[in-house]
Amino acid sequence: MTTATAPLVLDDTAQDLLFRAARTANRFTDEPVTDEQVQAIYDLVQYGPTAMNAQPLRVVLLRSDAAKARLLPHLSEGNRAKTAAAPLVAVLAYDVDFHENLPTVFPHFPGARDAFADEAGRHKPARDNAHLQAGYFILGVRAAGLAAGPMGGYDATGLDAELFPDGRRRSIMVVNIGRPGPDAWFDRLPRLAYDEVVTEL
Amino acid sequence: MTTATAPLVLDDTAQDLLFRAARTANRFTDEPVTDEQVQAIYDLVQYGPTAMNAQPLRVVLLRSDAAKARLLPHLSEGNRAKTAAAPLVAVLAYDVDFHENLPTVFPHFPGARDAFADEAGRHKPARDNAHLQAGYFILGVRAAGLAAGPMGGYDATGLDAELFPDGRRRSIMVVNIGRPGPDAWFDRLPRLAYDEVVTEL
Repeated sequence: MTTATAPLVLDDTAQDLLFRAARTANRFTDEPVTDEQVQAIYDLVQYGPTAMNAQPLRVVLLRSDAAKARLLPHLSEGNRAKTAAAPLVAVLAYDVDFHENLPTVFPHFPGARDAFADEAGRHKPARDNAHLQAGYFILGVRAAGLAAGPMGGYDATGLDAELFPDGRRRSIMVVNIGRPGPDAWFDRLPRLAYDEVVTEL
Repeated sequence: MTTATAPLVLDDTAQDLLFRAARTANRFTDEPVTDEQVQAIYDLVQYGPTAMNAQPLRVVLLRSDAAKARLLPHLSEGNRAKTAAAPLVAVLAYDVDFHENLPTVFPHFPGARDAFADEAGRHKPARDNAHLQAGYFILGVRAAGLAAGPMGGYDATGLDAELFPDGRRRSIMVVNIGRPGPDAWFDRLPRLAYDEVVTEL
């Protein structure tokens, strides 16, 4: 079998780690998630592509009870206990002022920053690309041998007012992170069939 | 070194394949991308998590000159030649009616479909989660040993009118796919430092 016809090059162990065996966790062990692990995750996923290399994703880590106490009231009730017990919680957000970095991160287009001078036009690309990066980040958590529990069930207005009172960041997702505990997940939910998702024009 | 302190579990080869050596390609060889490869990519990335398991991403493949002739006029001029020459082009879109699948893909919440009855409320979660899945998809292309060339430089209104005249899908990105050709990419652009992206509350 040549490389050309081998469907995937990524080895089975890595496929399992990132996608097939990995699962959204709702319960974690007490084992801490270290700064070294988070740094290693970022060192890896920073290379994922974004439009104009803008990299709008920002990550706020919460570990302490004091930090979590600011987050928990804004989560939907069903998400509070598991988040309180997670060794690490990451609030993913986008930087409303991502364009200020464009002269550095996209230097061959000198007009890039000015093209985004209007804040109203920045929210959509920032939110889009931060979600793209959230996909990389979740897989990066799994690459560290950890389980992620991404959640959208929270009051974004309340959370943003508490964590980002200057309005320069907007949350897109809350992710619990740790080693999966006992009965960490539900049964795998059904996925759409290939023909429901992929078509050829 | 215990598992707990090893920063990443994913092996170096896989890290390189997905993130470190992988690059956004602008030029490809003529080698075709097979249906088997696309199927294998989907079989892998389908397991990436989405909110309420809604899986709003849809993928339209374009290979023929006739199919590309419908796409190219809507791309910004700088993106046309490379897309015309790419062995495979994938238009990534979201399904405006993703909620119709919720009784199947999220069966334990019987009211999920009705909660999204208002179309105006569906665009944001569909677009958000399709971008999350686009992150998985780009890494899946790389897992197949192929290079991806994601592009946002196109007229979405014109492209959507041409490819999705019934308005039930909305494009989010166009991705050229193939084996990288000679001089396939520019030098790596700078990434933001850890401290610019990750903070602790």
